[in-house]
Amino acid sequence: MVYAVIPFRPKNPKTRLSCILSQEERENFAVCMLNDVIKITNSAGLNTVLLSTEEFEVEDAETVVMALGLNEALNEFLSGKNEPVLIIMSDIPLADYDSVKRVISTDCDFAIVPGRGGGTNAIFVKNPSYFHVDFYGASFLDHIRIAKELGMSIDVIDSFRLSTDIDEREDLVEIILHGKGLSRNYLEKKGVLLSVEKGRVGIKRKTDDFE
Amino acid sequence: MVYAVIPFRPKNPKTRLSCILSQEERENFAVCMLNDVIKITNSAGLNTVLLSTEEFEVEDAETVVMALGLNEALNEFLSGKNEPVLIIMSDIPLADYDSVKRVISTDCDFAIVPGRGGGTNAIFVKNPSYFHVDFYGASFLDHIRIAKELGMSIDVIDSFRLSTDIDEREDLVEIILHGKGLSRNYLEKKGVLLSVEKGRVGIKRKTDDFE
Repeated sequence: MVYAVIPFRPKNPKTRLSCILSQEERENFAVCMLNDVIKITNSAGLNTVLLSTEEFEVEDAETVVMALGLNEALNEFLSGKNEPVLIIMSDIPLADYDSVKRVISTDCDFAIVPGRGGGTNAIFVKNPSYFHVDFYGASFLDHIRIAKELGMSIDVIDSFRLSTDIDEREDLVEIILHGKGLSRNYLEKKGVLLSVEKGRVGIKRKTDDFE
Repeated sequence: MVYAVIPFRPKNPKTRLSCILSQEERENFAVCMLNDVIKITNSAGLNTVLLSTEEFEVEDAETVVMALGLNEALNEFLSGKNEPVLIIMSDIPLADYDSVKRVISTDCDFAIVPGRGGGTNAIFVKNPSYFHVDFYGASFLDHIRIAKELGMSIDVIDSFRLSTDIDEREDLVEIILHGKGLSRNYLEKKGVLLSVEKGRVGIKRKTDDFE
């Protein structure tokens, strides 16, 4: 059995999108992104677990509630596991079957997908019981260091889809251009559109839809 | 024979990096990025051609000078070609052997690598004589449309390394974290370093080195 664990905080997520989505919309949008990721981890044959900071139900994954910080919750989850675990963020809705398969098919003990700006968007570790995560800051470097210290062989997965975490207004461009799931539909429904001005692609919103 | 063509403008490139590099430094840095790309296209067995807006010599590629805009120069270059061509930008120094091989090994008639924000970082077209490029704006969509209109089968290549074009200060983070070539060495020599503040990774420069 291979696990996918997705950390999730249902309340007031993605505050850097406040300029374009209301709190309620950000909460709904975050759930859309989460469900896009769950659909892919399930299709890749993984046993998907939602690691939530509070009670929260989704259709296609078991929820484990831990009212802890990201690192503390994940490390608590990992400490009991002797089976391979894919840690995957809930805000990478461009994840698709091929990219996730590339991660979990690694020949190495450990595979990592960097996020833009030094972050970590996914980690696959075959023997997680000794591993611990250290998110925030340049976590990509920290995770590589931790895996090295444990003598693990390391694979860095080269995927635009998985490296694209959605934090800021301009990140929505990528969902509109490359997304195929619920998150893209949600943005379209809310009137969030591409705008091309002076050769640069940005995001605009039909104002009457902004609640 | 498969060609790689790299458009290049030697004078005053990468103006959005003016906040951290002087004009002379930007010109030198652009040449480092270019040479990183040339090294990879050559190692992938491609016949690399530099398509420059003015006279410019590099060690490991032939230069063709066309004092034209990006689209005009590339379309002029393509119009005479009956052999496969990889169009690849000079500002994607994270390009490596594996990612470029993935592009040129496509089973499709046409492969494209999106840049962030709707751009196009690389195009591989097996029969370029009918194809034309249309850069600027949401060129990713335009190139897909053009290929579709020509009845070409289309492959979108999923690579963080190739999708990362270097335009802005924060893009330099990716070179320092994931780069292996001359561009990374150049930044290090110039005292451009990672800075981690409040959990976010950015770029700082030892001020005494900023000419």
